[in-house]
Amino acid sequence: VSATWTRPVPPGITAAELEAALEAFADELGAERVLVSEADLREFRDPFQHESSDAFTASGVLLPTTVEEIQAIVRIANERTVPLWTHGQGRNNGYGGPAPRVKGSVIVSLRAMNRVLEIDEELGYAVVEPGVRWFDLYEAIEERGAPFMLSIADLGWGSVVGNTLEHGGTYLPYGLDFQMQCGMEVVLADGDLMRTGMGAMEGNRAWHCYKRGLGPTPDGLFMQSNFGIVTKMGVWLMPKPEVYMPLWLTVPRDDDIAPLIDTLRVLMLDGTIRMVPQIMNTLLLGAVLSDRARWYTGPGVITEEAIGAMAQGLDVGRWTMRFALYEDDAVADHKFAKIKRAFEEAIPGAKVWGTKHDPADIPHLEHPAERIQGGAPSLDWNNMTGWYGGEQGGHIGFSPIAPLTGRDAIEVRDLMRSMLAEVGLDYIAGISTLSPRSFVHVTMVIFDTSDADQVARAYDVCSRLVVEAAKKGYGEYRAHLDFMDLATDQYAFGEHAYRRFNERIKDALDPNGILSPGKQGIWPARLRDGDGVR
Amino acid sequence: VSATWTRPVPPGITAAELEAALEAFADELGAERVLVSEADLREFRDPFQHESSDAFTASGVLLPTTVEEIQAIVRIANERTVPLWTHGQGRNNGYGGPAPRVKGSVIVSLRAMNRVLEIDEELGYAVVEPGVRWFDLYEAIEERGAPFMLSIADLGWGSVVGNTLEHGGTYLPYGLDFQMQCGMEVVLADGDLMRTGMGAMEGNRAWHCYKRGLGPTPDGLFMQSNFGIVTKMGVWLMPKPEVYMPLWLTVPRDDDIAPLIDTLRVLMLDGTIRMVPQIMNTLLLGAVLSDRARWYTGPGVITEEAIGAMAQGLDVGRWTMRFALYEDDAVADHKFAKIKRAFEEAIPGAKVWGTKHDPADIPHLEHPAERIQGGAPSLDWNNMTGWYGGEQGGHIGFSPIAPLTGRDAIEVRDLMRSMLAEVGLDYIAGISTLSPRSFVHVTMVIFDTSDADQVARAYDVCSRLVVEAAKKGYGEYRAHLDFMDLATDQYAFGEHAYRRFNERIKDALDPNGILSPGKQGIWPARLRDGDGVR
Repeated sequence: VSATWTRPVPPGITAAELEAALEAFADELGAERVLVSEADLREFRDPFQHESSDAFTASGVLLPTTVEEIQAIVRIANERTVPLWTHGQGRNNGYGGPAPRVKGSVIVSLRAMNRVLEIDEELGYAVVEPGVRWFDLYEAIEERGAPFMLSIADLGWGSVVGNTLEHGGTYLPYGLDFQMQCGMEVVLADGDLMRTGMGAMEGNRAWHCYKRGLGPTPDGLFMQSNFGIVTKMGVWLMPKPEVYMPLWLTVPRDDDIAPLIDTLRVLMLDGTIRMVPQIMNTLLLGAVLSDRARWYTGPGVITEEAIGAMAQGLDVGRWTMRFALYEDDAVADHKFAKIKRAFEEAIPGAKVWGTKHDPADIPHLEHPAERIQGGAPSLDWNNMTGWYGGEQGGHIGFSPIAPLTGRDAIEVRDLMRSMLAEVGLDYIAGISTLSPRSFVHVTMVIFDTSDADQVARAYDVCSRLVVEAAKKGYGEYRAHLDFMDLATDQYAFGEHAYRRFNERIKDALDPNGILSPGKQGIWPARLRDGDGVR
Repeated sequence: VSATWTRPVPPGITAAELEAALEAFADELGAERVLVSEADLREFRDPFQHESSDAFTASGVLLPTTVEEIQAIVRIANERTVPLWTHGQGRNNGYGGPAPRVKGSVIVSLRAMNRVLEIDEELGYAVVEPGVRWFDLYEAIEERGAPFMLSIADLGWGSVVGNTLEHGGTYLPYGLDFQMQCGMEVVLADGDLMRTGMGAMEGNRAWHCYKRGLGPTPDGLFMQSNFGIVTKMGVWLMPKPEVYMPLWLTVPRDDDIAPLIDTLRVLMLDGTIRMVPQIMNTLLLGAVLSDRARWYTGPGVITEEAIGAMAQGLDVGRWTMRFALYEDDAVADHKFAKIKRAFEEAIPGAKVWGTKHDPADIPHLEHPAERIQGGAPSLDWNNMTGWYGGEQGGHIGFSPIAPLTGRDAIEVRDLMRSMLAEVGLDYIAGISTLSPRSFVHVTMVIFDTSDADQVARAYDVCSRLVVEAAKKGYGEYRAHLDFMDLATDQYAFGEHAYRRFNERIKDALDPNGILSPGKQGIWPARLRDGDGVR
């Protein structure tokens, strides 16, 4: 703990007013649920920011346990003009972690609201609070022996609700086109408690069965925004199939990404592959399975030769795709043969393989990717940030969306690789096909957080990538705090009609601007212009 | 043309102000695109309203052809406080047709904006204007020989955009859970032109490939609402499968609906059936294929005995399900055997049959249902409203949503049938399973529009059904003009938190309340209380 630490104060109020607000929060929640010490707050910084940075630091953290407490929090925040910043678990690594956009904001961490409220085994859905992690929901399903699979993200520590609200990907069939959310409960900025869809009718039986209501559907408004605090959400669960068959594809040349993507599109459009494949370049798999120094210790970016040696040494492709089938046994055989034929005919040297499993075996599979695609969460996919050595690896996720064509894959690859090379950073890429028509190219801009120069180069190149990618027609699917405004600036059609639309909704729903100001470039009126916050 | 006709005037302006506004519209659009005569307006009334009713009559109809003209229309409407009411084609039969909620509104008919702007054969999508009908888009696809199928509604005359915006069902795989819309362009009430999703970035390549953008997703807000006028929309197209296999299921007893639904749920949850089946009772098929007088001419509702005779005579079930497979040949065989076994084992006397077809044969199939499920539009499914004889049959669609369980199907059936019987109306039902977890029970409340007493009884019982269904936990998916307010009143959780949310958005986006006031129970501030409009 630094003796010189002073609590950051948000714009518009004084340090004394902030202290009084924190006391008011403590009166409501109990002092043990209001974190205010420098030591406690450290956990809520961007874990990958250079340690000298204090751009996105919070002034306190609230840990409510009930909807009523959240309503009390927004009441106090309105009365005292305190900016809040909400998260479920606050994972969000690569995009700023749990840290707020506006320095001095008070974090509303929903980690303690972690109950699985319902699992409906007849209709195949769960209802969860926002602090429920993939681990928690998976365990709740398995404990009662419910014959369902959950579509999960790579790392089990994340919040199911939080990931959903950030447009985070998941990999099982319900991850395709973000299918699994159904029905929300939301605390609005004025404390109103609203339920979406059929939940707007008290006692309606279809709240988590039908994604719409009578009238407009607001659910999408509460994702990647700051219009409300989601307190409950329905999650669709998929029945366990007769056969789970994780599959692998490797291709030998870097340009094979084009025919790979074009073949994949056909197989996804026709429904043969119905899940979210992830296509990794050699370096991404290398970062998970190995470390850089084993293959290259020279100057500048890793060489083509070293990448080739790595592919051979690790027995992976220049691109490797992880994917899976979830089918009746006979259909799995048919689809596997079709998939294998399609890729191996389209791409010389391509290899497709996989093994059928009883879904009961999923938690015991050796490869973490085969468990992830089977819905069994872990933290095993988290090794990659040690790439440049040291204990303090970090990364930025730079993640443009593109149409699912080989031409676009080549274009995005070339742009990312060349701009990263200019600043001496390796091109580490994971492409997830979020729908049969689009992919997100997650560029893992990895750095050593203790290397201030490397950190600065990483953030700088990402900012420039935002602009250069937009010039070519590619927009980010999610933006790091550091260039959130810049990324949203690129969405400028109609003289920023979309931003103005969001601002009008923001001002109507949250006139005091207390909910996550600046999130996704949406600023409340009082912070919108000229005061130096934005 | 009645000599005594006077143009209805909307609330808040005088007849002279209305006339001046109609002239201003004509100055912008040309007089031929502003319909003002009683004769021209007749086509834009609810076709099923009793002819003496003038509750929902418009004062004029505008037929813009460009986005710029729509922007001019909203400018004039704002300046002169003229309520507009927008439709694509204005079909919407059973829910009020093209007619406006507020008497004297000026209809903005987008029928003349009917261009198919783009068909992308690589990625499988089209971009259409709001006047494009199922017929038009189907023909555009077929004309260029694009190997794609469009998920269509029952009647080919409807607007693709209009149906989508009203939560209208379609039956092919992309109809499941309303998957096919991707990307919108919208004129807001202040004339702003906004594009949603990736379209918010000028020149973005993924506008119609990825359903979200960076930030909140507003698309759902423009459905069943009055927040904007949608001027373009992306529509996902499905590749034609190797085999199209329309299927039929009949069950012999009325209570068989319960095991039918429970078996169907399992087959939909596990992905065996991936489209929107429709389950019709004997009377619905009877209304399409036959007429009532052939089977029953006695007093009161049609008897059980007559229904039994009809089922036998028409060779249909007490419930008949139309559905289909779209698969590789080998998978179709596997799935057909599985489906047939599942239903025939679960329900004594159930029969499942069907024939595999090359998709090229779809337009030539004899049964209209087999063409509809194959994406080939027609008007052949439109015979049913002649049920009670006469040329002027009409119907109200009373359509609650329920979880996809046999218990719920029985509960909804019993409620509908008993309340309709009380007023002497037959129970005519089509159940569409919009997702693997929910169905919409479309109760076809058929009447003879020339029979004032029967019309009155039909509207009256529907209003009472709204309330009684809600008490049991079932809410309408779509509401007729006549009880739009009553239906939305039932969505009252949190002291009408959802309504207040919609009103805040309405007031923020459309402060003068010009866009479709009253639609889906959303009223602008100036018409909200006490002036007798609502």
